[in-house]
Amino acid sequence: FQVAARIDDAKGTKEHTQRFLAYLREVEDGDLTLGIAMTDAKGDRSKRPHEQGNADTYVHIVERNAQGIVISGTKAIVTSAPYVHELLIMPCRNMTEDDADFAVCCAVPVDAPGITIIARPAGRPGEKSALFSNKYGQSTAVVMFEKVFVPWERVFYAEEWEHSAFLTYNYATHHRHTCIGARAGFGDLLIGAGALMCEANGFDPGSETHLREQMVELIKITEGFFACGVAASVYAAEDPHSKSFMPDPVYSNIGKLLLATQIYDMQRIAHYVSGGLIVALPGPDEDHNPATAAKLADVLRANPDVPYDKRIETARFLEDLTASYQGGWYSLISLHGGGSPAAMKQEIYRNYPIGNKVELVERLLARGLTTEPDRAIGRNKQPGKCCAQGCTVPGAPIMVDMPKAAKRIKKVA
Amino acid sequence: FQVAARIDDAKGTKEHTQRFLAYLREVEDGDLTLGIAMTDAKGDRSKRPHEQGNADTYVHIVERNAQGIVISGTKAIVTSAPYVHELLIMPCRNMTEDDADFAVCCAVPVDAPGITIIARPAGRPGEKSALFSNKYGQSTAVVMFEKVFVPWERVFYAEEWEHSAFLTYNYATHHRHTCIGARAGFGDLLIGAGALMCEANGFDPGSETHLREQMVELIKITEGFFACGVAASVYAAEDPHSKSFMPDPVYSNIGKLLLATQIYDMQRIAHYVSGGLIVALPGPDEDHNPATAAKLADVLRANPDVPYDKRIETARFLEDLTASYQGGWYSLISLHGGGSPAAMKQEIYRNYPIGNKVELVERLLARGLTTEPDRAIGRNKQPGKCCAQGCTVPGAPIMVDMPKAAKRIKKVA
Amino acid sequence: FQVAARIDDAKGTKEHTQRFLAYLREVEDGDLTLGIAMTDAKGDRSKRPHEQGNADTYVHIVERNAQGIVISGTKAIVTSAPYVHELLIMPCRNMTEDDADFAVCCAVPVDAPGITIIARPAGRPGEKSALFSNKYGQSTAVVMFEKVFVPWERVFYAEEWEHSAFLTYNYATHHRHTCIGARAGFGDLLIGAGALMCEANGFDPGSETHLREQMVELIKITEGFFACGVAASVYAAEDPHSKSFMPDPVYSNIGKLLLATQIYDMQRIAHYVSGGLIVALPGPDEDHNPATAAKLADVLRANPDVPYDKRIETARFLEDLTASYQGGWYSLISLHGGGSPAAMKQEIYRNYPIGNKVELVERLLARGLTTEPDRAIGRNKQPGKCCAQGCTVPGAPIMVDMPKAAKRIKKVA
Amino acid sequence: FQVAARIDDAKGTKEHTQRFLAYLREVEDGDLTLGIAMTDAKGDRSKRPHEQGNADTYVHIVERNAQGIVISGTKAIVTSAPYVHELLIMPCRNMTEDDADFAVCCAVPVDAPGITIIARPAGRPGEKSALFSNKYGQSTAVVMFEKVFVPWERVFYAEEWEHSAFLTYNYATHHRHTCIGARAGFGDLLIGAGALMCEANGFDPGSETHLREQMVELIKITEGFFACGVAASVYAAEDPHSKSFMPDPVYSNIGKLLLATQIYDMQRIAHYVSGGLIVALPGPDEDHNPATAAKLADVLRANPDVPYDKRIETARFLEDLTASYQGGWYSLISLHGGGSPAAMKQEIYRNYPIGNKVELVERLLARGLTTEPDRAIGRNKQPGKCCAQGCTVPGAPIMVDMPKAAKRIKKVA
Ligand SMILES: Cc1cc2nc3c(=O)[nH]c(=O)nc-3n(C[C@H](O)[C@H](O)[C@H](O)COP(=O)(O)OP(=O)(O)OC[C@H]3O[C@@H](n4cnc5c(N)ncnc54)[C@H](O)[C@@H]3O)c2cc1C
Ligand SMILES: Cc1cc2nc3c(=O)[nH]c(=O)nc-3n(C[C@H](O)[C@H](O)[C@H](O)COP(=O)(O)OP(=O)(O)OC[C@H]3O[C@@H](n4cnc5c(N)ncnc54)[C@H](O)[C@@H]3O)c2cc1C
Ligand SMILES: Cc1cc2nc3c(=O)[nH]c(=O)nc-3n(C[C@H](O)[C@H](O)[C@H](O)COP(=O)(O)OP(=O)(O)OC[C@H]3O[C@@H](n4cnc5c(N)ncnc54)[C@H](O)[C@@H]3O)c2cc1C
Ligand SMILES: Cc1cc2nc3c(=O)[nH]c(=O)nc-3n(C[C@H](O)[C@H](O)[C@H](O)COP(=O)(O)OP(=O)(O)OC[C@H]3O[C@@H](n4cnc5c(N)ncnc54)[C@H](O)[C@@H]3O)c2cc1C
Repeated sequence: FQVAARIDDAKGTKEHTQRFLAYLREVEDGDLTLGIAMTDAKGDRSKRPHEQGNADTYVHIVERNAQGIVISGTKAIVTSAPYVHELLIMPCRNMTEDDADFAVCCAVPVDAPGITIIARPAGRPGEKSALFSNKYGQSTAVVMFEKVFVPWERVFYAEEWEHSAFLTYNYATHHRHTCIGARAGFGDLLIGAGALMCEANGFDPGSETHLREQMVELIKITEGFFACGVAASVYAAEDPHSKSFMPDPVYSNIGKLLLATQIYDMQRIAHYVSGGLIVALPGPDEDHNPATAAKLADVLRANPDVPYDKRIETARFLEDLTASYQGGWYSLISLHGGGSPAAMKQEIYRNYPIGNKVELVERLLARGLTTEPDRAIGRNKQPGKCCAQGCTVPGAPIMVDMPKAAKRIKKVA
Repeated sequence: FQVAARIDDAKGTKEHTQRFLAYLREVEDGDLTLGIAMTDAKGDRSKRPHEQGNADTYVHIVERNAQGIVISGTKAIVTSAPYVHELLIMPCRNMTEDDADFAVCCAVPVDAPGITIIARPAGRPGEKSALFSNKYGQSTAVVMFEKVFVPWERVFYAEEWEHSAFLTYNYATHHRHTCIGARAGFGDLLIGAGALMCEANGFDPGSETHLREQMVELIKITEGFFACGVAASVYAAEDPHSKSFMPDPVYSNIGKLLLATQIYDMQRIAHYVSGGLIVALPGPDEDHNPATAAKLADVLRANPDVPYDKRIETARFLEDLTASYQGGWYSLISLHGGGSPAAMKQEIYRNYPIGNKVELVERLLARGLTTEPDRAIGRNKQPGKCCAQGCTVPGAPIMVDMPKAAKRIKKVA
Repeated sequence: FQVAARIDDAKGTKEHTQRFLAYLREVEDGDLTLGIAMTDAKGDRSKRPHEQGNADTYVHIVERNAQGIVISGTKAIVTSAPYVHELLIMPCRNMTEDDADFAVCCAVPVDAPGITIIARPAGRPGEKSALFSNKYGQSTAVVMFEKVFVPWERVFYAEEWEHSAFLTYNYATHHRHTCIGARAGFGDLLIGAGALMCEANGFDPGSETHLREQMVELIKITEGFFACGVAASVYAAEDPHSKSFMPDPVYSNIGKLLLATQIYDMQRIAHYVSGGLIVALPGPDEDHNPATAAKLADVLRANPDVPYDKRIETARFLEDLTASYQGGWYSLISLHGGGSPAAMKQEIYRNYPIGNKVELVERLLARGLTTEPDRAIGRNKQPGKCCAQGCTVPGAPIMVDMPKAAKRIKKVA
Repeated sequence: FQVAARIDDAKGTKEHTQRFLAYLREVEDGDLTLGIAMTDAKGDRSKRPHEQGNADTYVHIVERNAQGIVISGTKAIVTSAPYVHELLIMPCRNMTEDDADFAVCCAVPVDAPGITIIARPAGRPGEKSALFSNKYGQSTAVVMFEKVFVPWERVFYAEEWEHSAFLTYNYATHHRHTCIGARAGFGDLLIGAGALMCEANGFDPGSETHLREQMVELIKITEGFFACGVAASVYAAEDPHSKSFMPDPVYSNIGKLLLATQIYDMQRIAHYVSGGLIVALPGPDEDHNPATAAKLADVLRANPDVPYDKRIETARFLEDLTASYQGGWYSLISLHGGGSPAAMKQEIYRNYPIGNKVELVERLLARGLTTEPDRAIGRNKQPGKCCAQGCTVPGAPIMVDMPKAAKRIKKVA
């Protein structure tokens, strides 16, 4: 939407914006669920879209006429594809002029002619030990488009390559922001289950120092990246074209980067406090084996106050979340979902007001400030925005007259 | 103040509160600066105050009469002591009944009879190479009290040991919260100076991948703990007794813990991007050595656009902040100032609503919820506070009816 | 064996040693494979064996007579139990006098009367996508003993509780030492597969900086803990009782601790360099789907020189090793196999010659050396052993006359 | 020397080798100390030597005649320069043909005409609180060469640019290998002093869990990189040209990289276990202040068994090593001395037998092995060297016939 408004503003039209709003109303009215089809198959990662040997590694426009456009290509990883009503197609990187055909954003119903969806099963249905993912889960799919027709009402832009980067980055920021909340929920589950496991083993993590240290580490990680989500909301800014709100990109990306890389530490801690039994205790098949079930329940109870079935249940819950295909899925969606860590790092650097920090130090060193426009590290100087709510650009040191600055800095110590 | 209100509420009086407010007015009217004298000498760390061989290792009350109290003992680390008007004395740990004499909070002028201040110099005055700390710096002092009289107007509590823990923890939370901002300022300086150093060496950190990765890491650390400060403010809660606001203790302590332990990583990165010259280039004595100054300026310039004096100045600025006594001082105040990391970890665990996370998992496992009041991991269940602003206790999963819960959890993935 | 010799030396007998050697010969002659049954069910972790409500949570002696002993109890995690000929039973912790019944080390055939084995399947047999673990895998089992008779020839000790700690620690050191090699092999697989995945995606990790940094990190971790294994062998010491060789316990435990905690980082890196497709690409069922197989192979190829089937094969290999039940199994055996990280940390501290380091600093400070025998930090002073090869106890600073010491220290800088 | 032999072997001469050996004899006979002058001023880091605006940013040959060569330029960081007899000049990077003038390796006495040394003071002489560095310390200097004549006997090579990389890398490997030992000594000091500080504060780190965890972490870091030094020696290889021994480059560089980046963690731990007093306790000027010395000694004692002067002495020792200019110097020489971390990472990747790991995985996947010579990830395949001692190239998986390979791999689990 922000991009539609931006294109309209650029072209002096209103049509892109209206088209998008009309579609949004339709989605809401029909209570449609959408799948996000952004990640192309991408082919050779070291080449741009138009350089690929096989053009179908990216979704692209093969024809445009009065009714609409015709697209072909492959989106490689679409979560929930088989369960949604429509797919929202977006480009997965910024496009250059040569890639104009690949700069397309539109919506298509999943059953449009020419679409083939090849999906993995969602979660681990039917697996008795999968105490979480036999109920909740997601499917990922490859979606192949072969000459799929999309009417103009559902085309939000086509070949406006100059704006594709903007959409990609913006969507990614939104996505990463929501990821933070999602993965904090995952952290909640590990914190709760970890505490239950400690209790079942006979410990109060609050009084066994080394277990408490681990639990605090888990809390620190979870709430640490959640705090970045909070900060991203606090420093959200209004988009000048569409008037909708954007979470702050620096904090969104830092939060996502923190969770992406620390999901593995979260697993380590969950395993640390629980013990090896998560993968080693008897599976659900043994629960009703008349020869051994009773005896097992007896000798594998630990804390006398927690019955065996509750202990093993928590162990399987943790196995499911952290030591199964589903656990791997969570790791990878955390690491790569919404873009790889390398992409986030670039976004952080691109958006960070490094110029202001440079200026701060130059003032402290009482040097003449360089003002050449081309200075690489001088780019990205953001004016300290002082608004009614008192917020400023995150990370932008406020520039005041030197004597006062001196006082402020004193507090640095 | 919060404690005064709490004591008054407990005793049904108003006197503690009024005394505190009167003092506050005096401080504001007189524009007095206060030093915080909290950390006692502490003697043997494995013993409580009343068990110490030498009672003077903690400040304590030796006499109380109609006019006031008389105190003796030692505060070991008081920043700025020689430069302030008054010292605000607070206990540095929670006290038990046996330690009642040590539970004292009061204010004394620095020149009260019986006070001896033994201070280190502030910063590195006169050191030519100390480009930051020859201007800005702080002194730390040992303050010894020998039978110092304090009139009742300046005694905020004396022997109310039951409330001492509350004050200590609250002050610490406030302190840690402000630390976050202070150290983020330190991060700003390193980011700015690191970028300047890269430029002086001939690089744009934005386009040299490994330098950009380091700069992004520095930004991630700095803004990562700053975000915790933001979250602590967002989730600040009103103190029921005094009606003043308290930053959220979980986020304050996580932010402080993150900065305490990562200040060393910040130094590493500043050194990484700058090179070994920070400690190895010629000192200021050489700047005006007629025999060599010109030649040095010539051969030690790197980027032709940045003159030698600017390069060396930035190098010395970084040496001062990260590779000098002052640099060590910053590390230690970050690590231990406002309490050691171990203290923060305890506070995080003590305040975290772990009971809610346990409940969440138990609901997902569809087990009967245990409600025994004594359950160690069930403590600290905080009601999801739903207020107009839509805020909740941080980290408290919101409990909804099961079917909806299921949907919410789905988003976890 | 070392323990048998130790017990014999203590008792002035030869019988324990001979019994063990006789058994060893039998095992070698019969080419028998042994399973190690060390980890008891353990019941309430906060209580010692004799304090457990249910004595069967630990294996213990219920009767001893002229022929042998009778044992009952539960070993909770025994790798390969269903596939071995005999189980070697050892205590899993040091025992006190009260726990004498639990101090038992003996061997029993898996089919001895009274033994029940409850096992999980080994690896992921039959799973088409499990490109490693459908061939190679291990089963873990719970083994319950109910009045199992063991003749004296197979009892290596019974109730010699004073020596149980020694065995447990020694075995653990050996085990951890071998673990290091095993997990380095796992690292080899990830390094090789990671490089193949980069190549399949279109990159030479040697020339794409951020991928090279990750690969180097993976190499650093793998070879870093492997080096500890090498050092443990170099500093191996002869056991004075049995004359067999023991790897150095400090390096063995450090190596195991490094791999235990870093296995999660190894996964993260493998995922980082490979991309999200590890868990998201089509499964093996699609490989022969006539409707889509050819098209998929076409659009999901990346590097034009690497055919799709090679790319997907490597992706599944990595999924199997790092994002499946088997992947979780590797994490947990790395973390807890051979004892939990907490156990290793204790062993490191217990064996480290910290007294020598204290002495070194005291000499530099030119203080009179304290020689009180009870000084906690003075314990564990190991004589610098100087042998023909010039090796010394690892970590033991060599004590020389002061002037020379000065020179040596100079090199510290 | 290795390079001299290599050049001779390349040229079919013996002269370089002989010249070097003659010089070595002279150094030994005269008991001369040498300073290593490798790091050039380097000018703009993004340009090669011959591209610099000012040629004097690198040492280079300005003239060659029958007697010898004449050199000019600047070496930026030379440890001990003012205290040595001779400087050994080496190039600090690999040189291309265009840089031939800069490929020079020779020795000059420090008092040769045309040499100017601009040095910083060594250590912190005269500083009373510098309990280590007022005795032991090193000076770093800038050394400027202006038309310095070097006779042929002391020129080890000149303009043999093809061999310069070899020397630089080899010397760096040797240097990094010795660094490991030096920094392990630094670790020893911190371990000893940390234990003394804990004791002085009233703790036995062995029984206070969180302090023990930190001490174990410090031991793990120190012995972890020391183990890499051990492994580098174990896998040392004979240089084919000179027959002298080279430590293994992969382990040398990993060890150096580990210490370079973890020196900061070592400081953090030393500070953690000691408390804030390291930078905050009274300085040496107070030790003999008659007004306060006795009282201070009384109230600042902690453990009653450790007198104040011993406590403060240890605190100052730690301040000196970790929170002073000297502390910063140790950080930077650890991080950059012997080359920056980026240089080590490149060396690790360049020397690692990644091709063997790829081959291992390809065999497991039972694919035809690719043998194209140009394959980027296939480079660096090292034959498994099997010698009497059974050692192999580090990290090179041993290739055996497939069935056996299977068994070996099984142990991976
Ligand atoms: C479980 C899961 C669910 C997902 N759900 C969705 C979804 O619903 N909709 C959707 O659109 N996407 C989805 N994604 C896709 C996700 O956005 C991608 O995984 C992510 O963008 C990374 O792309 P990739 O997996 O193709 O990895 P690659 O792009 O192949 O990356 C592999 C490695 O190569 C590096 N690399 C790639 N290109 C370059 C380059 N040009 N230069 C240097 N380095 C490079 C990367 O940094 C990374 O380290 C999902 C992913 C996962 C794992
Ligand atoms: C630069 C600087 C400025 C400061 N400024 C001020 C100021 O203005 N006002 C003020 O009041 N304070 C100030 N402080 C003091 C600061 O709050 C203390 O440093 C901090 O509380 C730690 O106390 P300590 O230094 O005595 O360390 P210690 O308490 O001796 O701690 C050393 C180690 O022992 C551990 N330990 C201590 N006690 C126990 C125990 N009972 N059980 C287990 N482990 C234990 C700690 O966790 C730590 O790891 C400042 C400190 C610094 C470094
Ligand atoms: C895949 C796999 C294969 C294995 N194969 C074998 C095998 O072949 N033979 C064999 O004998 N064993 C085997 N083990 C068992 C392994 O040795 C144990 O997992 C390990 O010793 C930890 O024990 P636990 O799993 O019971 O965890 P627990 O002991 O329950 O530990 C859980 C947590 O509690 C802590 N804790 C436990 N006790 C205490 C205490 N008293 N005080 C404070 N904290 C405590 C631990 O540090 C840990 O953090 C295997 C384990 C795995 C995972
Ligand atoms: C205390 C100390 C003592 C020393 N003693 C000696 C000695 O006795 N003899 C001696 O010869 N040397 C000595 N050195 C020098 C040491 O080898 C250098 O510090 C090291 O090689 C790094 O060079 P630099 O300091 O010029 O940093 P720079 O080379 O300026 O590096 C700064 C940053 O830029 C990066 N960078 C540099 N060039 C490039 C490039 N082309 N592309 C991408 N990134 C790049 C680096 O990776 C680093 O991150 C000493 C150094 C120290 C700190």
